[in-house]
Amino acid sequence: MTNPKIIIGIDPGTRLTGYGIIEVVGSEYRILDYGCISPPPKLKLSDRYLILFNAIEELIQKYIPQVLAVETQYVDKNVQSAIKLGMARGVAIIAAKRHGLAVFEYAPSKVKLAVVGNGRAGKSQVQGMIKLLLNLSEVPPEDAADALALAICHAQSYNSLIPCNCEI
Amino acid sequence: MTNPKIIIGIDPGTRLTGYGIIEVVGSEYRILDYGCISPPPKLKLSDRYLILFNAIEELIQKYIPQVLAVETQYVDKNVQSAIKLGMARGVAIIAAKRHGLAVFEYAPSKVKLAVVGNGRAGKSQVQGMIKLLLNLSEVPPEDAADALALAICHAQSYNSLIPCNCEI
Repeated sequence: MTNPKIIIGIDPGTRLTGYGIIEVVGSEYRILDYGCISPPPKLKLSDRYLILFNAIEELIQKYIPQVLAVETQYVDKNVQSAIKLGMARGVAIIAAKRHGLAVFEYAPSKVKLAVVGNGRAGKSQVQGMIKLLLNLSEVPPEDAADALALAICHAQSYNSLIPCNCEI
Repeated sequence: MTNPKIIIGIDPGTRLTGYGIIEVVGSEYRILDYGCISPPPKLKLSDRYLILFNAIEELIQKYIPQVLAVETQYVDKNVQSAIKLGMARGVAIIAAKRHGLAVFEYAPSKVKLAVVGNGRAGKSQVQGMIKLLLNLSEVPPEDAADALALAICHAQSYNSLIPCNCEI
């Protein structure tokens, strides 16, 4: 694969979707943007997905990333919430593919290992390391930190020169 | 809700997605199109979703339906397949919402009841009734018949004048 310069990580959820965008400069990472997309919960589910889609598309058009990194997300969910989560994930992937991004997925343990050095690290450890690695002035919200961790995990996979089979 | 003239039913799947489009003329239904979208299984998952999205968008642009009807699909799936199914469902819903369609969902038992008169009807019974109701020259494939049944179920819900709370 070609060297991705700009990576968007997305942690999709039915209520809150975290995003984080980094630029890879050599072995350094520069933060471009991060935050959470939270469509009003009173809206219809399909309207919330449309807001999510439009917000992700806007971020892609603004920062022109080459890669989307998402979590595998196959654990600890019941079937009903898995379908809803899958829908949010499908929305993010379609927004990316329509703009020609390659899509990679990583297991949560791999992301934690890449960022904290411990595949069983807690949420707050991930948040703390993200603040440190990206020289942020404040600790990012959980979902945004997870999204930034995904982006960093992908950058590390590339830099390690180990072939990555996680393109989906 | 306003009287939907053209309804698209979609039965999304990870391998095969059935679709069926009907026009409601009074209490009669006229078939406009039906079939299956089956992206090459050798392609990457994200590329298959993009093909699915583009195909649905093309159908919407061609027939200008006002409503998308999908199944609730919360049963008999494990978490991994539920996430993949949810992704295909999210792709269909986003394609619809981007073109201003309203999205309605119906439980499989309600669809079978509407079309066959029996909420526990088998696949072949649904196929047979769809052929009859729409004056088709041949029995439609299972997934296309399910999609057409969804569209008819929505049309009946409207015609019954019973308020429908299944808009999502």
